[in-house]
Amino acid sequence: MDSATALYRAREDGGTLFALTFDYGQRHRREVRAARAVGRAAGVREHRFLTIPLRSFGGSALTDTRRKVPRGRTARDIGRGIPATYVPARNTILLAYALAYAEVVRAHRVYVGANAIDYSGYPDCRPEFFRAFQRLANLATKRGVTGHPLQVRAPLLRLSKAAIVGEGLRLGVPFHLTWSCYLGGRKACGTCDSCRLRLRGFKEAGAVDPIAYATGVHRRPRRRAR
Amino acid sequence: MDSATALYRAREDGGTLFALTFDYGQRHRREVRAARAVGRAAGVREHRFLTIPLRSFGGSALTDTRRKVPRGRTARDIGRGIPATYVPARNTILLAYALAYAEVVRAHRVYVGANAIDYSGYPDCRPEFFRAFQRLANLATKRGVTGHPLQVRAPLLRLSKAAIVGEGLRLGVPFHLTWSCYLGGRKACGTCDSCRLRLRGFKEAGAVDPIAYATGVHRRPRRRAR
Repeated sequence: MDSATALYRAREDGGTLFALTFDYGQRHRREVRAARAVGRAAGVREHRFLTIPLRSFGGSALTDTRRKVPRGRTARDIGRGIPATYVPARNTILLAYALAYAEVVRAHRVYVGANAIDYSGYPDCRPEFFRAFQRLANLATKRGVTGHPLQVRAPLLRLSKAAIVGEGLRLGVPFHLTWSCYLGGRKACGTCDSCRLRLRGFKEAGAVDPIAYATGVHRRPRRRAR
Repeated sequence: MDSATALYRAREDGGTLFALTFDYGQRHRREVRAARAVGRAAGVREHRFLTIPLRSFGGSALTDTRRKVPRGRTARDIGRGIPATYVPARNTILLAYALAYAEVVRAHRVYVGANAIDYSGYPDCRPEFFRAFQRLANLATKRGVTGHPLQVRAPLLRLSKAAIVGEGLRLGVPFHLTWSCYLGGRKACGTCDSCRLRLRGFKEAGAVDPIAYATGVHRRPRRRAR
């Protein structure tokens, strides 16, 4: 939903849209299929899908099937420390490819749905990381050398999940086509960190998440000991 | 020969060696085979080979077979402008992977054989690019966050090709195992930019290049009009 919202922000800013989606050995391809549908809905001129090796390094629960995706954690837990789902240098790698793609299609701006609030544990989701990457982009490419540096934008960086939902609704993001769950079921699990943040975001925004969850997950009332 | 020399410099600096070689759709795999042989000779603990998509972007004579690799240019031509063999954001992408690998194996330093002198036309071979990447590395990784940032070293950055040859001979680099030619023949072509810079480097260093060139290429005297 973050990538989709960033894409719709780019759409609002105008110009021709080129989309780039990565299959980096996530546990499932559901997310890649969802991205394709969102790209179509947004009317991108071209949508590239890159299969890149990140899984081969291991070191993350998202790409290493021997490590467990944490489930059932509270929102407070999720914000603490560097989570097991952190993929080493992931955003650096993804943005480096975006830089290459942007250079080839002569794009002026790169948009990324990174978020510093709900993912404060990821070093490469912090504002200072993006500032450093912008600096690098100015030096790494022909555009930068010729005096027309590429702008790297992370429009959701300082937004809460609820604010992202609000922004997405304003922009007409087809949230029903998006996928956030770390697991690859037919329905979202509702209990992994990503599902929890998403559900909380919709709830706090006073909106209803249009995707299907494993039966009753987001409706089940908390049982209390009497 | 640059990567090999950087590897042997790392070896001299001490510690355990982990090598990372990329197959990014170069026109041939000769270079990848050469890297494997050099890694073995250097006694690396682990050598990872990553196939990464760069070719799919096109935009470079090295990865796009429809574009011609320039041949027969003089050394002066080679230093001018951004050459057709420039691969968009290549060093950013390769270093991003190195960052990920270093984080997983808990490496302290990353070495890269980049060179600013003979490849002054590549934006991502300039000293300021590496300074910006070092800054990014400090912010992008767990190591950086925990106060033990990874060092990114480009020990050949300011060396001429002749100085690299000299440094390689001092370090005992097995130059006979290395490959520089942009084309994938059984012998090096001797006429592409990379062969020319290599041959000139050996000549200026007063050394003999131990690899085989297409018959007579580096011995052929220049024919003059009488």
